[in-house]
Amino acid sequence: MPGLGGFGAGVGKLPGVPSVLPELQALALRVDERLDALLPAPDRRPSNLHQAMRYSCLAPGKRLRPGLCLASAAAVGGRESDAMDAACALEMLHCFSLIHDDLPAIDDDHLRRGRPTCHIVYGEAIAVLAGDALFALALEVLATMEASPEVRVRALQILTRAAGSDGLVGGEVVDVEAEGSEPDADTLHYIHTRKTGALMAASCEIGALVGGGSPEQVAALGRFGLDLGLAFQIADDLLNELGSEDQLGKAAGSDRARGKATYPALYGVERSREMARQTVDDAIRELGTVRDTGLLRGLAEFSIERVA
Amino acid sequence: MPGLGGFGAGVGKLPGVPSVLPELQALALRVDERLDALLPAPDRRPSNLHQAMRYSCLAPGKRLRPGLCLASAAAVGGRESDAMDAACALEMLHCFSLIHDDLPAIDDDHLRRGRPTCHIVYGEAIAVLAGDALFALALEVLATMEASPEVRVRALQILTRAAGSDGLVGGEVVDVEAEGSEPDADTLHYIHTRKTGALMAASCEIGALVGGGSPEQVAALGRFGLDLGLAFQIADDLLNELGSEDQLGKAAGSDRARGKATYPALYGVERSREMARQTVDDAIRELGTVRDTGLLRGLAEFSIERVA
Repeated sequence: MPGLGGFGAGVGKLPGVPSVLPELQALALRVDERLDALLPAPDRRPSNLHQAMRYSCLAPGKRLRPGLCLASAAAVGGRESDAMDAACALEMLHCFSLIHDDLPAIDDDHLRRGRPTCHIVYGEAIAVLAGDALFALALEVLATMEASPEVRVRALQILTRAAGSDGLVGGEVVDVEAEGSEPDADTLHYIHTRKTGALMAASCEIGALVGGGSPEQVAALGRFGLDLGLAFQIADDLLNELGSEDQLGKAAGSDRARGKATYPALYGVERSREMARQTVDDAIRELGTVRDTGLLRGLAEFSIERVA
Repeated sequence: MPGLGGFGAGVGKLPGVPSVLPELQALALRVDERLDALLPAPDRRPSNLHQAMRYSCLAPGKRLRPGLCLASAAAVGGRESDAMDAACALEMLHCFSLIHDDLPAIDDDHLRRGRPTCHIVYGEAIAVLAGDALFALALEVLATMEASPEVRVRALQILTRAAGSDGLVGGEVVDVEAEGSEPDADTLHYIHTRKTGALMAASCEIGALVGGGSPEQVAALGRFGLDLGLAFQIADDLLNELGSEDQLGKAAGSDRARGKATYPALYGVERSREMARQTVDDAIRELGTVRDTGLLRGLAEFSIERVA
């Protein structure tokens, strides 16, 4: 599937649940079209920086966070056009965190989404700065999108909190610090809810917000996203333990090799599978307050179908 | 002056212009008090990250950007309390850019504000992430400060643009790329207006905005800040060429040693001095639309008094 790497064949998903893959792929194409328009042109000065931003942000990927944002907007009755810019901002923020996490000083990853990482292609200086510029652009997009000032400010509050020292960045720090030490359950939960859960929760909350959802719906979808993020991260741990490099877009077993704290390392493979399933069920129970839950349910199943 | 390093003795300032130093120092103390409250507690998890954020952001410094923000608010009739959180956000954003610029992959600086740089003390991984977290916190503070949603959104638009690929980050990229090559006037102007000018312009604009200034006042103070930033950077180039390590808080001649594009390298010392003076005069002419210009004029003179 050119341009859509990251979609692995679903293995062992529940019988009777239709795959969300075609719908997510269709959303991803529309997200990429808008991302292409929002990102600075590759020949604009400084062109090296803008090319690096585009290289990382338009790399093949599932666009799961934009998908959650758009699906959450739809679930509360909003239109796709209300949520598209916010969806792109979430992908930019995700890319910023991937670029920085992959740096030699942090995870030292050479492969991401099946391609060489940003610092391998553009060098470390540009990678640090391309991450910074994507972060700035993500928030600029939220600050300028078509929505009331109240909605934009609230979206910015949600995203800056999710990104900061008690969110994404905090999770990455604790993850790095936990390397090579015996993982404990609290630390692992801290890492996974922040590294992955925080931004998925924010994606759902912001989608519900720009879609015109009530405060209760926004909060419920935030809890849905947090659970889904945790389930996704458990599944990712499992895939990293069991999967092939082809499925992962990065080296298999690399987490274990560097002594990363993972669910299978702490709980074993079978118990981790059960926990992922349980967390998805918890997530789905949060959908009681919204009307159209098809795509969100599908995304929740998708988060673990690779390892179910 | 313990806790206020970065204030050098003024050399050769215009006769009859009272030094702004005592007023700026007094502002800096109040800014530091609020920064201390806004930054996460040093023992909060992840404590290493929070300590690194505090180490860099509370390091002795002139607090010139907060000073510009507070002075701009005052110049349009606003109260200090209206602008204090925005002033702190500007210092946080400045610190984020210093931490990242100092990284081994970028400027590889070991000394900043007279102390070892963040990555020397906390390691490179934490330095990257502490910069990221300060960036997130700066914008979270703007998104949550006491002001109307309209004002907060506008402030966020100004700051994210100033930080991004056509602002701070873009300037740093072109600066890094220009190393070791013959500087040309266009490139040098690009670097200095973005690396220093963009955030100083944003500091003045945001100050005027939260202080209740008219759109004309906000725009005029933005131009004032841009000129002042350029003047400050020319003075910084001159100081780096001529000054002592003690005055600089970093190694003297280090820019020249690594082939950085600087004003003295392109125009010579005397012509650079004249250009700095001229740029300050341009800045001061922008103050026609605001009422209380004493502190802003003083800050403009201060930007070059070290080398006038």
